[in-house]
Amino acid sequence: MTTTPARLDIPKLLAELTLEEKAALLDGSDFWHTEPIERLGIPALMVTDGPHGLRKQPEEGDHLGLLDSVEATCFPPAAGLASSWDTGLLARVGEALGRECRSERVSVLLGPGVNMKRSPLCGRNFEYFSEDPLLAGELGAALVNGLQSQGVGASLKHYMANNQETDRMTVSADMDERTKREIYLPAFETVVRKAQPWTIMSSYNRLNGTYVAESRELLTEILRDEWGFEGLVVSDWGGVSSRPECVAAGLDLEMPSSGGAGTALILDAVRDGRLAEADVDLAVTRVLTLVDRSLPALAAGAEAYDADAHHALAREAAAASAVLLKNEGGILPLDADNGGTVAVIGEFARTPRYQGAGSSQVNPTRVDSALDALRAALEGRREVAFAAGYAIESEAADPALVAEAVAAASAADVAVLFLGLPPSYESEGYDRAHMDLPAHQVELLHAVADANARVVVVLSNGSVVSVAPWQDRASAVLEAWLLGQAGGSAVADLLLGAANPSGRLAETVPVRYEDNPTIGSFPGELGHVRYAEGLLIGYRWYDAHRMPVAYPFGHGLSYTDFRYDGLTVTVEDGADPRATVTLTVTNTGDRTGTETVQVYVTDPESGVYRPEQELRAFTRVTLAPGESAPVELVLERRAFAFWHPTVNAWTVEGGAFGIRVGSSSRDIRCETVVDLAGDGLRLPLAADSTAEQWLAHPDAGAWLRSTFGDSPLAAALGDPDHGQMLRAIPLSRLARFPGFPVNDVTIAEALEKFNGTQR
Amino acid sequence: MTTTPARLDIPKLLAELTLEEKAALLDGSDFWHTEPIERLGIPALMVTDGPHGLRKQPEEGDHLGLLDSVEATCFPPAAGLASSWDTGLLARVGEALGRECRSERVSVLLGPGVNMKRSPLCGRNFEYFSEDPLLAGELGAALVNGLQSQGVGASLKHYMANNQETDRMTVSADMDERTKREIYLPAFETVVRKAQPWTIMSSYNRLNGTYVAESRELLTEILRDEWGFEGLVVSDWGGVSSRPECVAAGLDLEMPSSGGAGTALILDAVRDGRLAEADVDLAVTRVLTLVDRSLPALAAGAEAYDADAHHALAREAAAASAVLLKNEGGILPLDADNGGTVAVIGEFARTPRYQGAGSSQVNPTRVDSALDALRAALEGRREVAFAAGYAIESEAADPALVAEAVAAASAADVAVLFLGLPPSYESEGYDRAHMDLPAHQVELLHAVADANARVVVVLSNGSVVSVAPWQDRASAVLEAWLLGQAGGSAVADLLLGAANPSGRLAETVPVRYEDNPTIGSFPGELGHVRYAEGLLIGYRWYDAHRMPVAYPFGHGLSYTDFRYDGLTVTVEDGADPRATVTLTVTNTGDRTGTETVQVYVTDPESGVYRPEQELRAFTRVTLAPGESAPVELVLERRAFAFWHPTVNAWTVEGGAFGIRVGSSSRDIRCETVVDLAGDGLRLPLAADSTAEQWLAHPDAGAWLRSTFGDSPLAAALGDPDHGQMLRAIPLSRLARFPGFPVNDVTIAEALEKFNGTQR
Repeated sequence: MTTTPARLDIPKLLAELTLEEKAALLDGSDFWHTEPIERLGIPALMVTDGPHGLRKQPEEGDHLGLLDSVEATCFPPAAGLASSWDTGLLARVGEALGRECRSERVSVLLGPGVNMKRSPLCGRNFEYFSEDPLLAGELGAALVNGLQSQGVGASLKHYMANNQETDRMTVSADMDERTKREIYLPAFETVVRKAQPWTIMSSYNRLNGTYVAESRELLTEILRDEWGFEGLVVSDWGGVSSRPECVAAGLDLEMPSSGGAGTALILDAVRDGRLAEADVDLAVTRVLTLVDRSLPALAAGAEAYDADAHHALAREAAAASAVLLKNEGGILPLDADNGGTVAVIGEFARTPRYQGAGSSQVNPTRVDSALDALRAALEGRREVAFAAGYAIESEAADPALVAEAVAAASAADVAVLFLGLPPSYESEGYDRAHMDLPAHQVELLHAVADANARVVVVLSNGSVVSVAPWQDRASAVLEAWLLGQAGGSAVADLLLGAANPSGRLAETVPVRYEDNPTIGSFPGELGHVRYAEGLLIGYRWYDAHRMPVAYPFGHGLSYTDFRYDGLTVTVEDGADPRATVTLTVTNTGDRTGTETVQVYVTDPESGVYRPEQELRAFTRVTLAPGESAPVELVLERRAFAFWHPTVNAWTVEGGAFGIRVGSSSRDIRCETVVDLAGDGLRLPLAADSTAEQWLAHPDAGAWLRSTFGDSPLAAALGDPDHGQMLRAIPLSRLARFPGFPVNDVTIAEALEKFNGTQR
Repeated sequence: MTTTPARLDIPKLLAELTLEEKAALLDGSDFWHTEPIERLGIPALMVTDGPHGLRKQPEEGDHLGLLDSVEATCFPPAAGLASSWDTGLLARVGEALGRECRSERVSVLLGPGVNMKRSPLCGRNFEYFSEDPLLAGELGAALVNGLQSQGVGASLKHYMANNQETDRMTVSADMDERTKREIYLPAFETVVRKAQPWTIMSSYNRLNGTYVAESRELLTEILRDEWGFEGLVVSDWGGVSSRPECVAAGLDLEMPSSGGAGTALILDAVRDGRLAEADVDLAVTRVLTLVDRSLPALAAGAEAYDADAHHALAREAAAASAVLLKNEGGILPLDADNGGTVAVIGEFARTPRYQGAGSSQVNPTRVDSALDALRAALEGRREVAFAAGYAIESEAADPALVAEAVAAASAADVAVLFLGLPPSYESEGYDRAHMDLPAHQVELLHAVADANARVVVVLSNGSVVSVAPWQDRASAVLEAWLLGQAGGSAVADLLLGAANPSGRLAETVPVRYEDNPTIGSFPGELGHVRYAEGLLIGYRWYDAHRMPVAYPFGHGLSYTDFRYDGLTVTVEDGADPRATVTLTVTNTGDRTGTETVQVYVTDPESGVYRPEQELRAFTRVTLAPGESAPVELVLERRAFAFWHPTVNAWTVEGGAFGIRVGSSSRDIRCETVVDLAGDGLRLPLAADSTAEQWLAHPDAGAWLRSTFGDSPLAAALGDPDHGQMLRAIPLSRLARFPGFPVNDVTIAEALEKFNGTQR
């Protein structure tokens, strides 16, 4: 290794590097390092897996990226963190991740992942934030800003449309332009615009037939030219198909090392003239820029982080991430001084499941179990009995364990039952087979509920599970996701009221798997997955079909209640419309708590199909009992716009927009309507515009009417009975009908004249 | 006009025609005639609108095709006829239509329309048969065979994917290949293969961006080369965009007359070399062949048809077309001798709605009203009171009419309430705005039902309406569609038991509009409609989502009951598998009745997504009380096949198929499983086939294992934990990982070797 320089002189280096060295810089040197060029003092930098903790493998790695890693704090995976809806928290987690990277001299952490949760069965949903692009984008930006504040880079991933594990390395995600622009790109766009991640990781899959890794549209035109991304694009590990095409598209760095294969391909392509050396230089510049950016932190040396403080942060994050789905009769929080026995049932209470499998798997600094935490908290106040109830990876009920659980429940004041998905159900690399808990766990719930009517279920799962078949047997359900290494103590905090639940669902819990939008089009077949539901991902789908759900997007209970008053929306209209939403939120209960205020925008009348409502702003407010606070949320132009595929631009159509403010997508507390002028976009007339469109044009309509004169045609077109059918015919086709008084020539003249006047 | 020759000598004529004459032959001479060439004795032939009756306009036509037409029998529109599921009946209706054409010297009737009912709101659904391609195809073929048996040609329309009226002349129907092949083409294919229609009408719309009228794939490759179509393709009226492209694609005849515009464009294109004269000759040959085919009937002279007999057939067809949706407590049939007053309520009883608006509108020879028919049938036996209840095109309730209706209901033994859609709701040229009856009609039902608990509702509508919001107020609901000119007497026959209902739903009645598969993708926007639901049209959708429906596809009650026994399926397996389904059906009730036996096939395990079940055969059996009869249905290869878009062929995947036999899609009476060997299709390995696919190949797997030896890789790939993720990686990508023992060269060698051995 060379000594680490203070900074790099990139133009100078570029001039000194040979073509061979340049090509080599675009390839990894091993699984986790970039290529150093000792001759010119260019050091290697190290990247490691993330995103919710550091997965730094020992130097004697296995070259498949599977071995154990150094110890690091395991924060809640994204499915948990997202449920906090707390950008401040995500920033602090990002900072902590950055400190851990610095302590290990890691320059780039591979995360966060902001892919949309299209199907509940995506095996990697636990690593992603939400079914909503706004929420995913804001949370991702906060985490990246926190991480990068420490001088460590993020790698925003997996860009883009990598929404399943089945055939992930080759499948083509086929979608229309509005769906791409309005659903699958915005989270990435938000993170780029608000946080400038040092790197972005291109995804394995294809989009509409073209590998994302080879798409100049995605990697250069949209990402850089349109959004202003200034960083480097790195391949997903093994995600390079044709290396020269990748370079030309804007994929700078191939990882892991291709063992020289990629370098050779690049050199051949440059020598053959199939790849411009300028493209190589651009990519090299970006690699050098990344190395340069990482130097200050490396120069500062490896400073140890405070593992206890990070564990405490992990605990705080976990408490904020759990979602209290139901709480009948206020069974929660448990009264620490009630005196009765608490039966803690379920192996997950003792052996927590706190993260998912695959490249994100962290080797934690410690792990809290809920059982230990409850015992510690209730020490000397309430007895805590434990029964395992089941073996985690078992396929069938164990009668002895069930009997033990029933006995414990019978003898207790309350049964806290930990259920969840076995680790083998959720992993990077494959999708889930179904949406259900193991059947024997549900049988256990029935047995426990038969023995004790006071049942609290705590769920451990990285993506939604069906709750409708069994939740009537539980008075309370706490969705505890995968909560990282401090999840156990956080769950205890929530169950006992030391923390007040504030998490909100970042994904809808449908009643049944068959209700979900991807039925028939997930995970696709023969190399393609058709995004059939289009814009209607998640709550957009359930709303469009007016379908009941088990729990709606945005839902989450607290131990206190909130009132919404005084909604006012003030609009500054114009080319860049801006609406300021203000209201007052009051804590009407008897505990301090946090409310997440959500603003959904509707566009009831539109020239294109628009989802029933879309999340456009949210904020959290923490209030003491009886306390009121003003809340302000701002809606900018994009909150009202749709992507217009004809003009290739975000467009605001003038008219009324509904502003709904609520505590969930289906608990709207107040709403109002605003009127916007809109962009006034008017598409030019064409020969095959309908007679109706021609007649509606101020000048062309007058011309057409005068051409018709008082002929029977004029009468027929105006006829309320047959007229509608005639008016829907393109003028160029009507012109073909015998005796029609315009023809191709007069139409062409009219287009010249009337489109000219309005451009 | 020239004298009509006996037959044409086409090769001779082709040699004698000038290019100008040939081009002229490819254009209409007016709205309804082809171009005659007097010099060579080529007569014009006349075509007229259909499809459920002749719409021959007087010679002094208005050139927009809107004027009144000569009198003709108005048979039930397709929505009605289809509900008979009776191919024999459709053949007889076709024969009658042929006789009426001959009497008017019409050579081609423009119908039938076999487009799929994708959305309940398509304004022209009343002209189409079904949401199921098999049913639509079989019914269409029967009608064409009947019509053409009279020496009169059909014009199968609108080929293809013309499933909405909104933007119908320009919209692009965007769908994937399997959807096109498995849902939107098969009805056309069946009619072509089983009935060889003289002509096919190309549709207005585009498919995946290309005008159908300009698609050589659709008009020549699929239609002629693949299906063996031997007739002529005519444009829909005004459906020609670029005339030379149409000719090259295989669209022979432009209608109506383009006033010479089309001819000039063809001549220019031939002279410029943009269009081959051979293509023109081919089209001319087809026009001459059509003229030639029409000569025998024209030579036979115009023989009058028996209008009374045709009216009687229209009545029989109408009775077979109505569907008895519900009949609680056996309220129907009404007892003609019960003595109490029958209150007939609703303007539709007096002023029947019996067809839809647009080009299919027939000027009927007479019209029966249900009111008159009921009065005549009950003359001297039961009193029939009438109250209009509402004005048909009214937007609001008329309190006086409601009061009169309530009074009539109060005083009666039973209220027969006629409800339905006003004519303005359903027309060619535009789509429906919603799926509901007018609100004031539903209010009337509530008022009537409050006054008399015995309510029978008779519906008049061309496409499904919501029944869920109100049907609990009626003991019986008779879906009487639009039933043609004899619908009124047929409804009386059914209500009084002179006819036993046997109609079955050819389209699902959903609970709510929001349940339907096209939410969010109908009618499209900005020139495109995305067939988002893909294969999941109609019952395929409701089944996939396990969604309740108001009435399922195939449903229809009778005044008697049937038992199914002894299901046996015998399979002749092989390249062309064939399964013979036999069972015994018994009439267990006390009236003669007709049962429609439906066979649905399921493919529970498949390499591609398959709908839950698909109708693959049906037959009708009429049985006296207590009578049993054996029923046999045959399933051929296509009943098990899916369209494989990679190999572009129908493919049968070996394995188990479920055979479900039932009285509706959700009333399966017996089922069994058969095993088929299948085609044994094995796609060749590719470099980006996954490690799993390579390992599964008998020879390539062995090679790969020996290459790995006992390296850690072999262990990792076999690892039950991480192995699944690794095995899902394409071999070409694994090869790029550091230290992996195969590379691009050895993979290419392996492909050569192992794909070679299995081809």
